[in-house]
Amino acid sequence: MYSSFIVNSLAIKMATNGIKHSISNGNGFAEVPATKLRKIENGKNGTLLGSTPDSIDNFLKEVVELALMEGFKSQERDDPVVRFEKPDELSNKMDLELGDGGESHEKLLECCKDIFKYSVKTGHPRFFNQLYGGLDPYGFAGQVITDVLNTSIYTYEVAPVFILMEKVLLEHMMKIIGYEKGDGTFCPGGSYSNLMGMHLGRCRKFPDIKEKGLRRLPRMVLFTSEHGHYSVKKNAALMGLPTDDVIKVKCDDRGKMCPKSLEEQILMLKGEGAVPFFVNATAGTTVLGAYDRFEEIADICKKYQIWMHVDAAWGGSALMSEKYKHLCKGMHRADSITWNQHKMMMAPLQCSSLLTRHPEILRKCNSIHVPYLFQTDKTTYDTSYDIGTKIIQCGRKVDSLKLWMLWKAKGNTGIAKQVEKAFDNAEYLAREIKKRPGFRLVLSEPECTNVCFWYIPPRMRDGITTWTSEDGYKRDLSKVAPIIKERMVERGSMLIGYQPLGDKPNFFRMVVMNEKVEHNDMDFVLDEIERLGADL
Amino acid sequence: MYSSFIVNSLAIKMATNGIKHSISNGNGFAEVPATKLRKIENGKNGTLLGSTPDSIDNFLKEVVELALMEGFKSQERDDPVVRFEKPDELSNKMDLELGDGGESHEKLLECCKDIFKYSVKTGHPRFFNQLYGGLDPYGFAGQVITDVLNTSIYTYEVAPVFILMEKVLLEHMMKIIGYEKGDGTFCPGGSYSNLMGMHLGRCRKFPDIKEKGLRRLPRMVLFTSEHGHYSVKKNAALMGLPTDDVIKVKCDDRGKMCPKSLEEQILMLKGEGAVPFFVNATAGTTVLGAYDRFEEIADICKKYQIWMHVDAAWGGSALMSEKYKHLCKGMHRADSITWNQHKMMMAPLQCSSLLTRHPEILRKCNSIHVPYLFQTDKTTYDTSYDIGTKIIQCGRKVDSLKLWMLWKAKGNTGIAKQVEKAFDNAEYLAREIKKRPGFRLVLSEPECTNVCFWYIPPRMRDGITTWTSEDGYKRDLSKVAPIIKERMVERGSMLIGYQPLGDKPNFFRMVVMNEKVEHNDMDFVLDEIERLGADL
Repeated sequence: MYSSFIVNSLAIKMATNGIKHSISNGNGFAEVPATKLRKIENGKNGTLLGSTPDSIDNFLKEVVELALMEGFKSQERDDPVVRFEKPDELSNKMDLELGDGGESHEKLLECCKDIFKYSVKTGHPRFFNQLYGGLDPYGFAGQVITDVLNTSIYTYEVAPVFILMEKVLLEHMMKIIGYEKGDGTFCPGGSYSNLMGMHLGRCRKFPDIKEKGLRRLPRMVLFTSEHGHYSVKKNAALMGLPTDDVIKVKCDDRGKMCPKSLEEQILMLKGEGAVPFFVNATAGTTVLGAYDRFEEIADICKKYQIWMHVDAAWGGSALMSEKYKHLCKGMHRADSITWNQHKMMMAPLQCSSLLTRHPEILRKCNSIHVPYLFQTDKTTYDTSYDIGTKIIQCGRKVDSLKLWMLWKAKGNTGIAKQVEKAFDNAEYLAREIKKRPGFRLVLSEPECTNVCFWYIPPRMRDGITTWTSEDGYKRDLSKVAPIIKERMVERGSMLIGYQPLGDKPNFFRMVVMNEKVEHNDMDFVLDEIERLGADL
Repeated sequence: MYSSFIVNSLAIKMATNGIKHSISNGNGFAEVPATKLRKIENGKNGTLLGSTPDSIDNFLKEVVELALMEGFKSQERDDPVVRFEKPDELSNKMDLELGDGGESHEKLLECCKDIFKYSVKTGHPRFFNQLYGGLDPYGFAGQVITDVLNTSIYTYEVAPVFILMEKVLLEHMMKIIGYEKGDGTFCPGGSYSNLMGMHLGRCRKFPDIKEKGLRRLPRMVLFTSEHGHYSVKKNAALMGLPTDDVIKVKCDDRGKMCPKSLEEQILMLKGEGAVPFFVNATAGTTVLGAYDRFEEIADICKKYQIWMHVDAAWGGSALMSEKYKHLCKGMHRADSITWNQHKMMMAPLQCSSLLTRHPEILRKCNSIHVPYLFQTDKTTYDTSYDIGTKIIQCGRKVDSLKLWMLWKAKGNTGIAKQVEKAFDNAEYLAREIKKRPGFRLVLSEPECTNVCFWYIPPRMRDGITTWTSEDGYKRDLSKVAPIIKERMVERGSMLIGYQPLGDKPNFFRMVVMNEKVEHNDMDFVLDEIERLGADL
């Protein structure tokens, strides 16, 4: 589909060797305005070490052409998703070593080609391996501009446009969530957004924590479901909390946190003298894609004055669709929300936001006096635009432009269609799975666009009705997915992840979000698994 | 200097309206091989919502051309570094709002032009405002490829090339530092790298902290110099430590931490029953650019069994130069080091590394069992390549390729020259400042490439010899830099930061690293400040 661009580039490349000559002798090319040309020729301000400016021009041009061609060409279904090589072999095939001398542009271009050749094509319509995928051209365009403008989003002084843009985005997202007021920030990844939520919740409950530290405060405990993301536990350890004080709340058989268990645990821990300060609910769990019951959890959090956070990193994008936003019902009652736009909304990596309904909490929790960066005697503008005081980091990469560009291009409506297409594909897949004797869904009705299922090879199908109670059968079944995965990787035809969960042996987790994915890709997935696993 | 690319693009754009037709009728263009063409035409797999594929092609092509032209053209000295507008005015001049409908490509391109128009040109040779700057074409090329390949560097399964590349880079950097063995990771920014260093130091001293948490462990204290980066304090708060337990060690008049004071403070706190677990030394402080005395600090840390971290985010790149690496003498004795390649090495933002001489500590401190992502029953490769288990985050953006590309292109030697050029410019600037009556250096001999100085307007020069004791004079002097800064911003001729430090009133901090900067840019800076401030 990027045909005309690629054809243009190729044709131009072949046709215009010595284009500078072409311009001067005017053989068929339109004339470049003299003023523009003068401007450009004046532009020699310093030489890059080791290369002449002209050759750098050409190098850049070739890399960009290669990137666009390889990147967007890799979306062809008959291209492999991966050309897999084991680490040692790949090391031998590529020249990755660094040394004293620099390399020629020819050599660098060879390296670039190898990088593309051996990298996984996450933009490929048959990449279903992670909670990200696809290559959105508008998001990509935003990335390229971000790369060129190469700045850090901490002060208005060095990032005026991006600071306004981030503000617009955050306010737009808050409106979609249903926050009447609030604040937010982009974070380097969903784990970090969750960390920020936990940090805010703790600051809110213990406003003097900065001065006192954990040792002079009561025992504080937090809650997450047994299917909640592992970042909650990792973050707690970083924050100085013992693992045992991260209370795992039981889930029902659909993977949703049991509100009743949550309340029981809260009461039990309060009885022990501990202070519950944080509940992590989830919108779209990592494996099963379950949405917690936000209204009920919000009632409990309100009752016990606990900060409610929703990790909607994966499933939050359902908010964009009139048809599916009911899944997030009650989410607006959360004190803070993690929402990754680099997942179902297909913004390029990384794009994760943390939103809170408390307008002042970010600055209150994170601001310290830093005169070299955040001058308070600036006369040029209102320094509340220096948003670097709201976060834990100092420098922060601009993540807003790629998302803004995508959003501006597609509008709420375009993004809604994209999200609905992902849900439609997932629903189709679930229906097809039910029709095939060799497949079995883990949840009878998947809620989000991750569809979890077992493939059961022909020789094992007799045991299918009783397998849950048979340990030997489970052990056998748990070996099926890894072997199919190995074959899939070697063939490079598609990529899907697998994992066990609790007492459930290894099963596949299909993740659908790329808007290029069609129903026949879903059929292909099932057919391919049957081809790869029929002999097991 | 990007003349030929830009001229090519312009000429091509003007000459090739209707290029598809040109190809089919062959009027002057070389033929595209038939197989290639077929391949490209087959590539229509799905339609992007709201636009036809052809128009997306053109849009992408135009954005990339614009980005390259604007980004690299902005390096002209006669272009403004910034076209400043106050937040409200800028909001009015740009169309940033998001809504239900999407926008046309024409509209989006207008927005892109505005983004460039009003953004600060950090690649401009007269941008001296932050500890980053410049736009390295090799780094940029690496970014574009990273953007196209859009993956997360946690498993070899989805990032095979990048995982090997990061390994090569980290090993290369460890060799340069002088680590015989060790490990490392890239982090989203220097504050985060410092956080990781603190986290590792705490895990090392209290291996059972995950289970026990801070409340069941002794009081733990850490040390940093009064000029150390503010992230140490912010990170400590996040980690649950009270601010008072971040001990600020005195500096000498060159801005270096006093080892004697450090040892005294350690002894005092041990006497109080506290456990010192972490010392943060600095290679190139944020404002003055001072390098701490690493050998002496290492001796103290060894004696009291304290984790020694060096925040070399800014000054670590001196390691690249035979001439300047003496500044980092003894740094290899540190347990961990933060080194930002997006600063003096000019890698695009963000590129920050954390290195440690303890090979197992990253995984030991951060690994938890996460079956859905880090399958242990994989048969395709050695899962020690799944480096996501070594960090706090889950997904992580690929920061290695941009740095690798830059390093591969320039080699150690090319980077050394670049770093030495920055030092040479700073030394030249310091010499010129000494010659001019209106200027006064804050440190008589700057160590790194940040040069701090006051500008003293003509009417105030009489007081220059006694100013340190005169409070009224100080107050007057502290108003000079903000006004000059305001005028500089309005004029857009250059950007330099200022701040007070301790009892020193506002002074300018010039930061030099961009390899395009020449001695006459240093002259320009001083001349321009004189022009802007002569009437004050």
